[in-house]
Amino acid sequence: MAKIGFVGLGNMGGPMASNLLKAGHELKVFDIVPELVKKSSEQGASSVDDVSEVVKDIDVFISMLPASVHVESLYLGENGILGVIDKSTLVIDCSTIAPSSAKRVSKAADERGLTMLDAPVSGGVGGAVAGTLTFIVGGSDEGLDSARPFLEDMGKNIFHAGGPGAGQVAKICNNMLLSVLMTGTAEALQLGVDNGLDPAVLSEIMRKSSGGNWALEVYNPYPGVMDGVPASNEYEGGFLVDLMIKDLGLAMEAALEKGAATPMGSLARNLYITHGGNGYGRKDFSSIQKVFSKNANR
Amino acid sequence: MAKIGFVGLGNMGGPMASNLLKAGHELKVFDIVPELVKKSSEQGASSVDDVSEVVKDIDVFISMLPASVHVESLYLGENGILGVIDKSTLVIDCSTIAPSSAKRVSKAADERGLTMLDAPVSGGVGGAVAGTLTFIVGGSDEGLDSARPFLEDMGKNIFHAGGPGAGQVAKICNNMLLSVLMTGTAEALQLGVDNGLDPAVLSEIMRKSSGGNWALEVYNPYPGVMDGVPASNEYEGGFLVDLMIKDLGLAMEAALEKGAATPMGSLARNLYITHGGNGYGRKDFSSIQKVFSKNANR
Amino acid sequence: MAKIGFVGLGNMGGPMASNLLKAGHELKVFDIVPELVKKSSEQGASSVDDVSEVVKDIDVFISMLPASVHVESLYLGENGILGVIDKSTLVIDCSTIAPSSAKRVSKAADERGLTMLDAPVSGGVGGAVAGTLTFIVGGSDEGLDSARPFLEDMGKNIFHAGGPGAGQVAKICNNMLLSVLMTGTAEALQLGVDNGLDPAVLSEIMRKSSGGNWALEVYNPYPGVMDGVPASNEYEGGFLVDLMIKDLGLAMEAALEKGAATPMGSLARNLYITHGGNGYGRKDFSSIQKVFSKNANR
Amino acid sequence: MAKIGFVGLGNMGGPMASNLLKAGHELKVFDIVPELVKKSSEQGASSVDDVSEVVKDIDVFISMLPASVHVESLYLGENGILGVIDKSTLVIDCSTIAPSSAKRVSKAADERGLTMLDAPVSGGVGGAVAGTLTFIVGGSDEGLDSARPFLEDMGKNIFHAGGPGAGQVAKICNNMLLSVLMTGTAEALQLGVDNGLDPAVLSEIMRKSSGGNWALEVYNPYPGVMDGVPASNEYEGGFLVDLMIKDLGLAMEAALEKGAATPMGSLARNLYITHGGNGYGRKDFSSIQKVFSKNANR
Repeated sequence: MAKIGFVGLGNMGGPMASNLLKAGHELKVFDIVPELVKKSSEQGASSVDDVSEVVKDIDVFISMLPASVHVESLYLGENGILGVIDKSTLVIDCSTIAPSSAKRVSKAADERGLTMLDAPVSGGVGGAVAGTLTFIVGGSDEGLDSARPFLEDMGKNIFHAGGPGAGQVAKICNNMLLSVLMTGTAEALQLGVDNGLDPAVLSEIMRKSSGGNWALEVYNPYPGVMDGVPASNEYEGGFLVDLMIKDLGLAMEAALEKGAATPMGSLARNLYITHGGNGYGRKDFSSIQKVFSKNANR
Repeated sequence: MAKIGFVGLGNMGGPMASNLLKAGHELKVFDIVPELVKKSSEQGASSVDDVSEVVKDIDVFISMLPASVHVESLYLGENGILGVIDKSTLVIDCSTIAPSSAKRVSKAADERGLTMLDAPVSGGVGGAVAGTLTFIVGGSDEGLDSARPFLEDMGKNIFHAGGPGAGQVAKICNNMLLSVLMTGTAEALQLGVDNGLDPAVLSEIMRKSSGGNWALEVYNPYPGVMDGVPASNEYEGGFLVDLMIKDLGLAMEAALEKGAATPMGSLARNLYITHGGNGYGRKDFSSIQKVFSKNANR
Repeated sequence: MAKIGFVGLGNMGGPMASNLLKAGHELKVFDIVPELVKKSSEQGASSVDDVSEVVKDIDVFISMLPASVHVESLYLGENGILGVIDKSTLVIDCSTIAPSSAKRVSKAADERGLTMLDAPVSGGVGGAVAGTLTFIVGGSDEGLDSARPFLEDMGKNIFHAGGPGAGQVAKICNNMLLSVLMTGTAEALQLGVDNGLDPAVLSEIMRKSSGGNWALEVYNPYPGVMDGVPASNEYEGGFLVDLMIKDLGLAMEAALEKGAATPMGSLARNLYITHGGNGYGRKDFSSIQKVFSKNANR
Repeated sequence: MAKIGFVGLGNMGGPMASNLLKAGHELKVFDIVPELVKKSSEQGASSVDDVSEVVKDIDVFISMLPASVHVESLYLGENGILGVIDKSTLVIDCSTIAPSSAKRVSKAADERGLTMLDAPVSGGVGGAVAGTLTFIVGGSDEGLDSARPFLEDMGKNIFHAGGPGAGQVAKICNNMLLSVLMTGTAEALQLGVDNGLDPAVLSEIMRKSSGGNWALEVYNPYPGVMDGVPASNEYEGGFLVDLMIKDLGLAMEAALEKGAATPMGSLARNLYITHGGNGYGRKDFSSIQKVFSKNANR
């Protein structure tokens, strides 16, 4: 069993830390919200008063933070932990942030002789609690070999996308594509329904045909077609529209930086933003179906 | 074995007629291009001088024509075959046309007491030759029951989408979604490559994740990632950009008629048209990848 | 003064007929809504029981109907007035309809030896009442010369777009462009406001710069920037979102028929449809600003 | 007459410096390209070996650099000139950069007690040479009052957009709108031409109607419609596609930062990038017309 430092105990980080504790590791934790630290302490973690304490005398350091700015602030700068952390520590950032930001931090870690991985996750809060997250990892083969046992304590699938930052790139490419196929599926279903088709019949035909995709397979956006998905529960739970907007923003940043054209992803982002503006920010992202059905119903 | 009348012996209709002959049926054929009739005759079909002759003394009538205008002209109007065909004949139109057009013809057939199905296909010339087409059928259960043996002589999968015209609706919904997910996949792959990822690694990660779709599964648009697909053969063969543009036009017609919003499908159509305008009309539709890679290479 | 037959006395046709009466012409009118006929009769028009009566013993025939289907039904078909109208009558259709439809009717008129113009209008109900409409005319020079005095009784500006149907084409091209520049102006203003600019200052800078356009000049979509426009009156009145959606549908039909790419117009149509679906169908089309400001306010 | 330090003597900065010399000012100049410095020296400027020398003993400092990174590098950081420049110097940055970057530099200047303006220009190389540039200024009223005489030596129109960074915001909002209306105008013209209209007639009708905009007024994108514009000279000269892509990138950055939706601007950016990828990067931005006409011609 290892000694692990863990920073960021929110909706995702909290249950991830729990699973590491359940696996028998010794945890030192930190979060700026005292309640979250308290909760983790009650589960067996030890807490410290300052983030610089977390990194002392540990084997592995894991962070799970909301955005690039928090990650850069934690690792870099005058009081950044890269300045104080022991070189033998394996560093894993599980936050979803801009690839350029992940590369900047990884480079700084490398310059200090540290092994660091970017390992953003998918699977949502449910996956974090159940320990079935997917990790998409950027960094060296050796780094991933060392990290694998810990990632497996928190998740089920581990993909190695490439070198530093590649985990972030792969995740945002995937989520951009996801936004496109969910929106495309929603509008195809509505077009069928508007022309008299049964959404369940059309879903089944497209699922088995060249329109087949993850949404039709396990996450149908049309209410009533599939059991146990957000669409059949008034779009509660799942992957929030606001989080999809965040990930699409990261994809757009990466596209801007490289001068890449992403017409479908850009359109999806704009549709999701206006959808959020209509009050759906805290609903599941498959609620994009409403953009099309609201018109049909007037 | 049945007596079948068959009109339209082009790239698709020709091999479909061949397969019916191979299955032992007696065929009477017609096409405005004499060479195509000759070819079919050499395979055992009998030919007639006028389309009105094809429909005499047959059990089943099948048509496979390029567009709505040809189908309406064949069936309706002063000399339309619906006026002369025997009421006991089963009528199957395999053309891909506007749902409104299919409904118009089906309604006229119904008024004359005929059983008619719209049964557009997917699977391309390859599927037509191999007898592995997919039929997406609109019409009555009884009609489909009668038609099934003949469709099975030409294809592998048969979907029942609903009443008259539903086959056309389901096909264009599917193909609109296909255009969206192909374009979305292409731009996601290029965004990854522009940011340093290996397209094969990224394809595999997304295929197994929430970005999973038919293109990543069997028709990867990035050259060299998958064997035996058009992308690895300079986008030769496959499903032509010009045909995708045609199907997207039908989807837009259906959307216009119902006042439906199809932002992703509309954008895909516009991208495919400008792609065709750049000289890719006769290339496979997965060549939409070039729209993104050309920019990356400058 | 002339004898004029007038069919279609709705929001637009009613005041247009009024202005012809005020100019001293003798009017025979018809509408399927008795109240509208009654109102026109009270202003001095004579009414008839059947549309075929309207066209007897007149110099000029004018129609103002909602859509292609009504125009084709009035002029063509078994009881179409083209079959009964005297060849010396000048025929003017002021409806906004599909160019293909206008061409079909014009061709039929021409085959019967009649001079016919398509003359769709812009300027809205306000312009119809004030007699300040703009007419965009398709047809022969001679036809327009004959029509000009009557058009001038109802409007202020007369453009000659070309031969039969050209008036319709020019109108839908203009309105498609209008939808694009209104939406583009709205999102540019919101982007500026989101980044701290005063919308009035930004409007004035862009108006005088290369972003200058009709919306910034006389129809600013941002509330409070300009007096006397719908944006400063909660988007009441003006040119309804539902009417813009109709015109964009006609533009899309024309684009589909010619295989033309219209990415911006297609996107504008989709945005207007979803905007209408959110309850803005009966608001002025500059309310597209709300699509962007709703997001900003959350 | 004033003593002016000037950094950045490229296509734009070179002629701007010339005009300041012609107006009688004393210039100290710097550029990393020796040839550009030499050219300016021949016109009467004095040159220095190091950028830190430029800022000594001057009344006004002006910079004209390609991108945010160059501006931040010049002003900020360890050797940034804000650390050495005298507090009485008026500082004007004429580069077009990200608003966030402009604000960062302005804030740093303010903290050091300096008066700084962001004053990006429009009008292109032609306007720079002729001294007819437009300046869109962000900063204090007092700052602009002091700067006005110098700006007037280089340009004709001066707009005050607001506080620090507002000049950049207003410029990118304007240019985003410009890209939208140019693309919208191009596709409307092609739609008209595809449907049989004369592009000159249609241009004139829309110019005088609600489709009226700057492109139709002075910069018609359709070849042959207007004399003396890039469209009538094979799209040579003018405002390059690559520069429009740059400005649209800045607009997208500003939109991302604020979570703003810019569907039309995003689409325009994607169309311009793929247009650039097709070999039009060094052509005038009105060449977006080719995207539509290439399809029409096949």
